[in-house]
Amino acid sequence: MDERRQMHLGAFLYPTGYHVAGWRHPDAQADAGVNFEHYGELARRAEAAHFDLLFLADSLAIRGDDIDALERTAIRYVAQFEPLTLISALSARTQRIGLVASASTTYNEPYHIARKFASLDHISGGRAGWNLITSQNEYEALNFGAHYHPSHAQRYARAGEFVDVVQGLWDSWEDDAFPRDKRSGLFFDRGKLHPLRHEGEHFQVRGPLNIPRSPQGAPVLVQAGASDAGRSLAARSAELVFGAQNDMHEAKAFYRDLRARLTTCGRADKSLKIMVGVFPYAGRSYAEAEDKYEALQQLVHPVSGLSLLSAQLGGCDLSKVDPDGPLPEISETQAGQSRRQLLIDMARREDLTVRQLYQRIAGGRGHWQLIGTPESICDELEQWFIESAADGFNVMPPYSPAGFYDFIELIVPELVRRGLFRDGYRGNTLRSHLGLAVPSNRFARG
Amino acid sequence: MDERRQMHLGAFLYPTGYHVAGWRHPDAQADAGVNFEHYGELARRAEAAHFDLLFLADSLAIRGDDIDALERTAIRYVAQFEPLTLISALSARTQRIGLVASASTTYNEPYHIARKFASLDHISGGRAGWNLITSQNEYEALNFGAHYHPSHAQRYARAGEFVDVVQGLWDSWEDDAFPRDKRSGLFFDRGKLHPLRHEGEHFQVRGPLNIPRSPQGAPVLVQAGASDAGRSLAARSAELVFGAQNDMHEAKAFYRDLRARLTTCGRADKSLKIMVGVFPYAGRSYAEAEDKYEALQQLVHPVSGLSLLSAQLGGCDLSKVDPDGPLPEISETQAGQSRRQLLIDMARREDLTVRQLYQRIAGGRGHWQLIGTPESICDELEQWFIESAADGFNVMPPYSPAGFYDFIELIVPELVRRGLFRDGYRGNTLRSHLGLAVPSNRFARG
Repeated sequence: MDERRQMHLGAFLYPTGYHVAGWRHPDAQADAGVNFEHYGELARRAEAAHFDLLFLADSLAIRGDDIDALERTAIRYVAQFEPLTLISALSARTQRIGLVASASTTYNEPYHIARKFASLDHISGGRAGWNLITSQNEYEALNFGAHYHPSHAQRYARAGEFVDVVQGLWDSWEDDAFPRDKRSGLFFDRGKLHPLRHEGEHFQVRGPLNIPRSPQGAPVLVQAGASDAGRSLAARSAELVFGAQNDMHEAKAFYRDLRARLTTCGRADKSLKIMVGVFPYAGRSYAEAEDKYEALQQLVHPVSGLSLLSAQLGGCDLSKVDPDGPLPEISETQAGQSRRQLLIDMARREDLTVRQLYQRIAGGRGHWQLIGTPESICDELEQWFIESAADGFNVMPPYSPAGFYDFIELIVPELVRRGLFRDGYRGNTLRSHLGLAVPSNRFARG
Repeated sequence: MDERRQMHLGAFLYPTGYHVAGWRHPDAQADAGVNFEHYGELARRAEAAHFDLLFLADSLAIRGDDIDALERTAIRYVAQFEPLTLISALSARTQRIGLVASASTTYNEPYHIARKFASLDHISGGRAGWNLITSQNEYEALNFGAHYHPSHAQRYARAGEFVDVVQGLWDSWEDDAFPRDKRSGLFFDRGKLHPLRHEGEHFQVRGPLNIPRSPQGAPVLVQAGASDAGRSLAARSAELVFGAQNDMHEAKAFYRDLRARLTTCGRADKSLKIMVGVFPYAGRSYAEAEDKYEALQQLVHPVSGLSLLSAQLGGCDLSKVDPDGPLPEISETQAGQSRRQLLIDMARREDLTVRQLYQRIAGGRGHWQLIGTPESICDELEQWFIESAADGFNVMPPYSPAGFYDFIELIVPELVRRGLFRDGYRGNTLRSHLGLAVPSNRFARG
């Protein structure tokens, strides 16, 4: 291990926090989803703590139509900012922290996505990242005139071509294509312009993109799918992967598998970083941390819990299941294959009742949950980091903003003290924070 | 006339200025299109001068493929920010000025547009406006897999349904739909949720929009097309119209016509404002203003001038025309009908050669050009305003930022002195600046 290797940290800005009942906590900002000052202050604090990046998830629809459950939730995209709009505004409130927003490849056009993220990369001075997602949520189809929701395989086929088009468009211009020579009147150098002329199965895009190549060469490409198709796409294209493992051995297997696939694709080991989601309850003592955990668990309504579990298991209906019985057999569906299997495995392995399972996921929804003191939590993060289960962690606080400030005030200083995390930024771009190289332009002559 | 009636002013932030050779001016910011600090400072100055709004135009492709002309231009969308990304970032740098960005209805989905502008309205505290455009530029089709460019009529049919869907989505939630009651656990009131369930010819959109109704009720709807179809759409839906007349009688006729159509649609007179584009060269003396004009005219290359004229006349090829002969007959095309006719009429009326015509449009491209002193320019603006040719003006400086600062420093103080323009903001929203009412929610019960 490189002795200067340090972990990466992301601030997952889920509106009221990641816990299903997070918004009900007395210290939670219940209107966080549409409160720009809330996000601005979180961003400022994350940057002051030298986080690598802010991260915004997305959904192009409210998730589900079970009104009894929806009316009790702040976390199923019922009421929050569109991520690109928000992250663009946050770019003007920050100077150095990376800015990663999610955007679907299923109900978007690659020209729009390439252009918006390239714009963000320019505006922010090289801090943009695009989290490429496919739309798991069948309700999204209904907002885009699609009368059927495409299958998992169809979505990944489209996503693969989508990312090729986006990355090709980002290379439309060489870095020095714009002399803007007032004397001669030449604004650009036509020899350094490369229209893409893509003709594929899903997309026909002539290009060029009508914005210069961006400060990072290209925004950082982020991806999170852990299915076989998701891993294949990540190995081919992604530079940062968000993992959702809650078990170190699974995380290590995922890490090894992705690195092996990377090699198969002919890519260098250092061209991809893996950050695992962590759902932390930090206290100055164990008792304080446990109290924080229990306070939120008390606030989970059974209607919310059962509905959440149904959604996480791929859309099956569990509303009539006995909460105190075991998890019934779950039939195969198209949605969210990798996440579903993680949950089923956990329930079987630990012999959980339905209630225990929904309480478990009501917080982290299958993500790695840590309840403890700065020392115990840093011990766990350090072990995962040193044993190559992760290159860093995407921090998903249970409630916001207080749960996030707990992590910044209690955990980060201890990570810095141990030399595991930076005590200041060394560069000004997301690539510099992550140790990712600026890609060369595919069209440029050596 | 209401004696307190005052004019409205928009800051048209065209990257290097509106003149085709503007970027070559010694004081121009040649890289303005991708220079966020440039825009940030312009926005700050426009807000300090109490402008109603910032305005950003758009094109989803570089306009044209005549490389000889393109390589000399900064104004055909060769290299600039995507407007929604930029205006979202500018929202965080400003407090009170309105924020209007253009977005095409031809190559977008209404759910995305509704969501992004609603987000911007929340983030900015009620300052968002959407300039609804249809894609005139056939090159846009090639970036979106469209093998043919839709006709003018097809584009407006789609635009009409598009705006219905967007405005319907903006009413998805009543204003008080989110009690976010921590005690009871009810986040929203299901009785105040109204999914759109739109099933139309071009769009099927279930809704609801996954963001609350925005501070202005709805972002201000802006429109600019002056063709018959454009005027019909404006009369039915728009709240602010940008006119492009360069003759007061034409402007008055346009103003009267739109107001008559408004009445036919059952809308109140005060529910629509009309701002005409103005392309100003302001000097402390006539000689200084003329010098500014001539300095830019000298910088127009014939290749640029002929290409620009071809594009403005609907895509005909004038590259082999004698610049010193009269304008040949121009055949009917689909693109930009209203703008084309304005130009042809001007050439015939004033008996212009092709060179004179392209020099005329190289600056304002058919927009109303004013060269003069603070007194003479304010006289003209005042006359148009008082005679109801316009409710205000969208200021399109020939080069940027200096041409814009000229307007702020020389013209605005004189307008304020005459009582024609505000000396401070009275409200904090774009609607308050424009005197437009907050619309009621179509689904709310009295």
